[in-house]
Amino acid sequence: MFLPRKILEEKLRNMLAEDVGEGDVTTALTVPAGATGEAEVRCKESGVAAGLEEAKVLLESLGLKVEALVQDGDEMKKGQVMIKVSGDARTLLSSERTLLNLLCRMSGIATITRRLVKKIQRAKLKTRIACTRKTAPGLLYFDKKAVLLGGGDTHRLHLDDMILIKDNHITMSKSLRTVILNARKNASFSKKIEVEVTRADEALEAAEAGVDVIMLDNFSPKQIEKTVEDLERAGLRGNVLLEASGGIKAENLMDFASKKIDIVSLGEITESAKTLDINMKICRVLNKRLF
Amino acid sequence: MFLPRKILEEKLRNMLAEDVGEGDVTTALTVPAGATGEAEVRCKESGVAAGLEEAKVLLESLGLKVEALVQDGDEMKKGQVMIKVSGDARTLLSSERTLLNLLCRMSGIATITRRLVKKIQRAKLKTRIACTRKTAPGLLYFDKKAVLLGGGDTHRLHLDDMILIKDNHITMSKSLRTVILNARKNASFSKKIEVEVTRADEALEAAEAGVDVIMLDNFSPKQIEKTVEDLERAGLRGNVLLEASGGIKAENLMDFASKKIDIVSLGEITESAKTLDINMKICRVLNKRLF
Amino acid sequence: MFLPRKILEEKLRNMLAEDVGEGDVTTALTVPAGATGEAEVRCKESGVAAGLEEAKVLLESLGLKVEALVQDGDEMKKGQVMIKVSGDARTLLSSERTLLNLLCRMSGIATITRRLVKKIQRAKLKTRIACTRKTAPGLLYFDKKAVLLGGGDTHRLHLDDMILIKDNHITMSKSLRTVILNARKNASFSKKIEVEVTRADEALEAAEAGVDVIMLDNFSPKQIEKTVEDLERAGLRGNVLLEASGGIKAENLMDFASKKIDIVSLGEITESAKTLDINMKICRVLNKRLF
Amino acid sequence: MFLPRKILEEKLRNMLAEDVGEGDVTTALTVPAGATGEAEVRCKESGVAAGLEEAKVLLESLGLKVEALVQDGDEMKKGQVMIKVSGDARTLLSSERTLLNLLCRMSGIATITRRLVKKIQRAKLKTRIACTRKTAPGLLYFDKKAVLLGGGDTHRLHLDDMILIKDNHITMSKSLRTVILNARKNASFSKKIEVEVTRADEALEAAEAGVDVIMLDNFSPKQIEKTVEDLERAGLRGNVLLEASGGIKAENLMDFASKKIDIVSLGEITESAKTLDINMKICRVLNKRLF
Amino acid sequence: MFLPRKILEEKLRNMLAEDVGEGDVTTALTVPAGATGEAEVRCKESGVAAGLEEAKVLLESLGLKVEALVQDGDEMKKGQVMIKVSGDARTLLSSERTLLNLLCRMSGIATITRRLVKKIQRAKLKTRIACTRKTAPGLLYFDKKAVLLGGGDTHRLHLDDMILIKDNHITMSKSLRTVILNARKNASFSKKIEVEVTRADEALEAAEAGVDVIMLDNFSPKQIEKTVEDLERAGLRGNVLLEASGGIKAENLMDFASKKIDIVSLGEITESAKTLDINMKICRVLNKRLF
Amino acid sequence: MFLPRKILEEKLRNMLAEDVGEGDVTTALTVPAGATGEAEVRCKESGVAAGLEEAKVLLESLGLKVEALVQDGDEMKKGQVMIKVSGDARTLLSSERTLLNLLCRMSGIATITRRLVKKIQRAKLKTRIACTRKTAPGLLYFDKKAVLLGGGDTHRLHLDDMILIKDNHITMSKSLRTVILNARKNASFSKKIEVEVTRADEALEAAEAGVDVIMLDNFSPKQIEKTVEDLERAGLRGNVLLEASGGIKAENLMDFASKKIDIVSLGEITESAKTLDINMKICRVLNKRLF
Repeated sequence: MFLPRKILEEKLRNMLAEDVGEGDVTTALTVPAGATGEAEVRCKESGVAAGLEEAKVLLESLGLKVEALVQDGDEMKKGQVMIKVSGDARTLLSSERTLLNLLCRMSGIATITRRLVKKIQRAKLKTRIACTRKTAPGLLYFDKKAVLLGGGDTHRLHLDDMILIKDNHITMSKSLRTVILNARKNASFSKKIEVEVTRADEALEAAEAGVDVIMLDNFSPKQIEKTVEDLERAGLRGNVLLEASGGIKAENLMDFASKKIDIVSLGEITESAKTLDINMKICRVLNKRLF
Repeated sequence: MFLPRKILEEKLRNMLAEDVGEGDVTTALTVPAGATGEAEVRCKESGVAAGLEEAKVLLESLGLKVEALVQDGDEMKKGQVMIKVSGDARTLLSSERTLLNLLCRMSGIATITRRLVKKIQRAKLKTRIACTRKTAPGLLYFDKKAVLLGGGDTHRLHLDDMILIKDNHITMSKSLRTVILNARKNASFSKKIEVEVTRADEALEAAEAGVDVIMLDNFSPKQIEKTVEDLERAGLRGNVLLEASGGIKAENLMDFASKKIDIVSLGEITESAKTLDINMKICRVLNKRLF
Repeated sequence: MFLPRKILEEKLRNMLAEDVGEGDVTTALTVPAGATGEAEVRCKESGVAAGLEEAKVLLESLGLKVEALVQDGDEMKKGQVMIKVSGDARTLLSSERTLLNLLCRMSGIATITRRLVKKIQRAKLKTRIACTRKTAPGLLYFDKKAVLLGGGDTHRLHLDDMILIKDNHITMSKSLRTVILNARKNASFSKKIEVEVTRADEALEAAEAGVDVIMLDNFSPKQIEKTVEDLERAGLRGNVLLEASGGIKAENLMDFASKKIDIVSLGEITESAKTLDINMKICRVLNKRLF
Repeated sequence: MFLPRKILEEKLRNMLAEDVGEGDVTTALTVPAGATGEAEVRCKESGVAAGLEEAKVLLESLGLKVEALVQDGDEMKKGQVMIKVSGDARTLLSSERTLLNLLCRMSGIATITRRLVKKIQRAKLKTRIACTRKTAPGLLYFDKKAVLLGGGDTHRLHLDDMILIKDNHITMSKSLRTVILNARKNASFSKKIEVEVTRADEALEAAEAGVDVIMLDNFSPKQIEKTVEDLERAGLRGNVLLEASGGIKAENLMDFASKKIDIVSLGEITESAKTLDINMKICRVLNKRLF
Repeated sequence: MFLPRKILEEKLRNMLAEDVGEGDVTTALTVPAGATGEAEVRCKESGVAAGLEEAKVLLESLGLKVEALVQDGDEMKKGQVMIKVSGDARTLLSSERTLLNLLCRMSGIATITRRLVKKIQRAKLKTRIACTRKTAPGLLYFDKKAVLLGGGDTHRLHLDDMILIKDNHITMSKSLRTVILNARKNASFSKKIEVEVTRADEALEAAEAGVDVIMLDNFSPKQIEKTVEDLERAGLRGNVLLEASGGIKAENLMDFASKKIDIVSLGEITESAKTLDINMKICRVLNKRLF
Repeated sequence: MFLPRKILEEKLRNMLAEDVGEGDVTTALTVPAGATGEAEVRCKESGVAAGLEEAKVLLESLGLKVEALVQDGDEMKKGQVMIKVSGDARTLLSSERTLLNLLCRMSGIATITRRLVKKIQRAKLKTRIACTRKTAPGLLYFDKKAVLLGGGDTHRLHLDDMILIKDNHITMSKSLRTVILNARKNASFSKKIEVEVTRADEALEAAEAGVDVIMLDNFSPKQIEKTVEDLERAGLRGNVLLEASGGIKAENLMDFASKKIDIVSLGEITESAKTLDINMKICRVLNKRLF
């Protein structure tokens, strides 16, 4: 998920433009043009850093000088300084909230993702923790990138990615088998095909029809076990990846993550992540011409 | 916060465009052009509806027919149908996730806001529950509107709104008093002036300098009480509104909301709100030409 | 009204793009690629400088070197050089008209505003000169900022700013009193409420209902006097600001500006301002490779 | 200057978006969702109508019903109703100012242009009244179209139009003659070539070098007369169009317009035009559910 | 590759806006406002129809009535009418060239693609004809969709799609094997991995390292044969798809397409496709008010 | 056709954004952040260089260092290095295809144009080779500029340029004569008027009515000869430029180009140009931290 700087800059500029509106009236009234300062961005609780590349691009595109003291993906202690930034004080103050909203959200998502990934690792499992497309609307890139920095799997980036046949697609079709065969025949060779199933027999049918990934939607751990047995018995387990999805949360994650399941996906790590507490304080006033 | 339809449509189109990318490959492979269907959008847990105006504008702009069964701000029961939507099935399926991401987020924010507002009302208080500018980056309009629908106060909409002099502005100034007087002299008559203070004596100084609102940042309930007494003694309590802010959460809200405080503001209702669980199911296939 | 550079750059780029179209064909035919030059931007009549920050951002974003010899808000004499700019000659010539259109308009608005503000100051009054939302469409930011540089009050920046209840809002309501009370109950604490009235008794009613500002629309100086007396008699004058508006022009300004009125607003300073005469001349050809 | 509706809609939407910001807070507080009304747009002084196509496209794109009672270019009497518009009252009120700002500016430009054109016609002359590129920045399309509706000539629409070699281009060149010959050799056959000259002998040189149009910049009426005689004597008058420009205003127009001059161009009709006074009043409240 | 109508409309509007500039001056001078007409879009040579969905969305978004007589993907005879369109004549004429440029390009690409696909089918082969990312810059969506309508494979839609490790990526890496293993470990489960190789032994190495697809870049038919034998001998042929690429054109296609190769990709079908000859003629003038 | 850098940058950024989507996943997986490299862009067949200014602006806007070894319009030998570019390797690899797609297309168009121009020059003719508006949709600027670099004439840049009355405009009019006279009366003095005719008598009629250019559409060489004779006989040949158009291709060009014809226009040089084969290879890995 590498974005050239100019593309990222444009996304960030739009966020800032929304917050600034017709101009920051407070800063214009309280800080003289030409005043310069230095600020520290600090995390006020421990967590995983994310959004540092974005912070750098945003601040540098505004003409500020940035020194990043942590890197994307780093684990931070409470109180650690993440960024030192200096330059035009009006610019610093006008972009503070946009900067922090991005860092807090991305670091919050990376932090919860990392916690789940470590749970899996401690259990010596290889199951991947994946997010879904349940992101904040319009923040798909940032939410998915934060998951990646936390150690998770981005899953489909958007609708032009992998073929993922879900419940509503199947409702619109003649049968599960027909829809899969049709997709296999017409899909580009460059794409994997995944299908969402709700019963063990559908999983078998999907594997026989030749999908690459099967999403077991709202299966209980028991149902999962039975499905895997069925697939193994039919000699199809090796042909497919299995993804458990639906109703999985941090609390019950370990009921689903097991040697039987390749991927566990959770909506909550992107749609309801608690933000990490990060703030910015002006620590030096470099230019003394003050009101 | 009324936006003419075309302006809203543009914001929503950008969200959809991001998710669709170069096109929905799954839908193109599984649903024939021209197929039509009907779907129901249903909340799977109780909560406050928000985002219905947005949903209507999004779906109608795509040529779909929409019937809203609940209204923005309504309290919904688990399982209630919010929207019936019908029309071109490919369009329905391609916009499903964007639609739900918006409804789930906005309804989640409205739901938590309403819960806090009701707590206040049950205590027979008039304190307002306000959000801050700690929104998802780029979603300021949607997050603030959801707070409004939940019964909360939007606070400043963005940086060209009220003058709000915060810690970093004061750091960049000669003194609290100077910065307030300067702002009063030069600010447009159309704007209120608020200042963030961290000690009781600063609150007094701010009130004397003539601000409209004082934000008591990270004051304990005791400190608040003392500050109000000081202001009353100086005959200045009636001139200002008092806002408690910093470290306030759903759990400790009632320690801060009291007859002494006009506004309590919380970042978490917009930055870390749990989304409401809402889904969409195709319930009728209207055009039988299926793959 | 401070805008971070990148946000301003984008607004200015759009203006330039419109004027340039598919490319400056004259410059491409008359000036060789790589030629460089130096130009002076000079005011050809006395007036107040405005648009210099914008000029700097525009020209620097195009890679030109800029030296500003006057500052925004400065009073300039006829013939004074405002800016020296040097660099790629094709770029200089292609952006000349966009640059001048902005400088001439903003300086024209600042100049007329300053003239009115000085009239008021000479009369030892504190009445503020405010503009309205009657700007050139799409130039709200630039027109309002020019007023500010001239010493005027920007009034509402746009529709998400102060609550301003005008004639048509009242027509759509049950009564003046109802609409004010409803607004007071539901508006954010962060916003002032102003109402437009057309008779003295309405002004009293509005003051009683608790608005912050009353706009006396098309009141004669006599009617204003009577209204203020009524308000004083009712002990309400101190609670509200009074704005005179409608039919006020440079010529009759002093009939309205008085100790009784806090703000006088005029549409003409933004919608019909005479531009200041400013031009740009290449004064040195630095690179001799000419056609 | 015909623009397909969708292109025009986009330009108008951007103007509206700027004015609305995060939403019209007054209208949301004073007019209930779903209320409908009817309004009249009326000119309060006589003048030439311009901007009606734009008004129609703007209002219809917002879902309002529009009846235009005058047409672009019509001469209107004081008090005449220009447009009846009905529909959603919130939408009506939120777009009122953007609508009027456009109509007032365009009609103001058309009115002054028409007045000058009629002066010329009364003198039985064929001289064209042309505007320049001195428009409000970003409003080139609207300002030029208003000139056209007033009966004027749009001159170059922007920089990719006609080749117009001005003073600064000549400064960057070896000689007037060289620059013209080079342009003639390399310009597309589809474009006319105009050159700005400051002396009679330059006009002769330009005509000899084969330009299509000569702009006599800041020539006095006497200098113009002499230049024309020189051109006639050299047998070159028939080969070129002559444009008088620089320092020409409504007051001295007739000193320049004559049988000798084909085009007179004035900056002031677009850059300093007085707007026409037009307002909008809600005249019927169609839906009685009011606050 | 299904795009919701509003997304497509925006892409098409941008194309039209570029061509129209500040307005269609010819149409405004030759066709009166309000005139209506009917036109036929006709192919002047046989070929495969593509761009009809786009044409419909463009024309309908401009308020025109469209009847499509052929469908995307249909084979058309010389002279066949593709579309009947009626409505506002100025709109029709202003959008004619944008419409045709799109139809001619997309149909041209679909036509050459179909011809190659049929060659393969006649040889009873299952090899897929794929395009590359060598499209006209900015027309990726339209070029790829035209290939699809011609019966070809779109290959990667853009850079966030499949992992495709090319020569320059390998140059930047320690070794082919390392880079593949690293990609496999860190790539999302949802994506296939393809690698470009230039020698038979690299193909073996890639297959052993576990890629999904191997691109044989600039292999001669003989080299391909040897590579396939090597893979078969190692028991790895069944694990991978093989794509032949580089230097393949319509003329030598059948030297590469064979039972041994799964995909043949060609740049020329998108980057150098001959457009199909399609024109539009007004066939009925419906409204007689003509100049 | 000179575009200031920021305007060009925006067009190029949009092309890159489309290709990158949510991020270059391959590069992120194969090249470590911070790695730097140097690459050469090389033409693999002889031709005319075009797109170098665009390449420079694109690459420099991404922070890369560019050295151009050839200039726009230069004739290149097979194997010649066009550009050396160095810097961040991820950025280099992510922008490679967008860069090459632009260079290959523009150089392809310039190459074919130059070939035709040289044919004309070898025949000692002055006929101009012009393109039409048959460009790739949305690439009007780039296609026209490439024609210019090849030595061709850009013809109309877009619809706000010259008045060009075509078949469909005439169909919508009362008569050829009426439509021309009306255009002459109302068109801006700044624009030439061209009319498309299909018969010799129409050419005469058009010349009499005073057009500047006549397009002889689909005339055979014989018909052209007769038309020119008719015009000469009527003494009108000197008043107009003659453009031959329709059915002209590289092969039959010399049947049309002659002393009798001023301009020959061909659609194929922009709509069906073969791209020039250009590639980019990383030639040095500057930073050894590789995966």
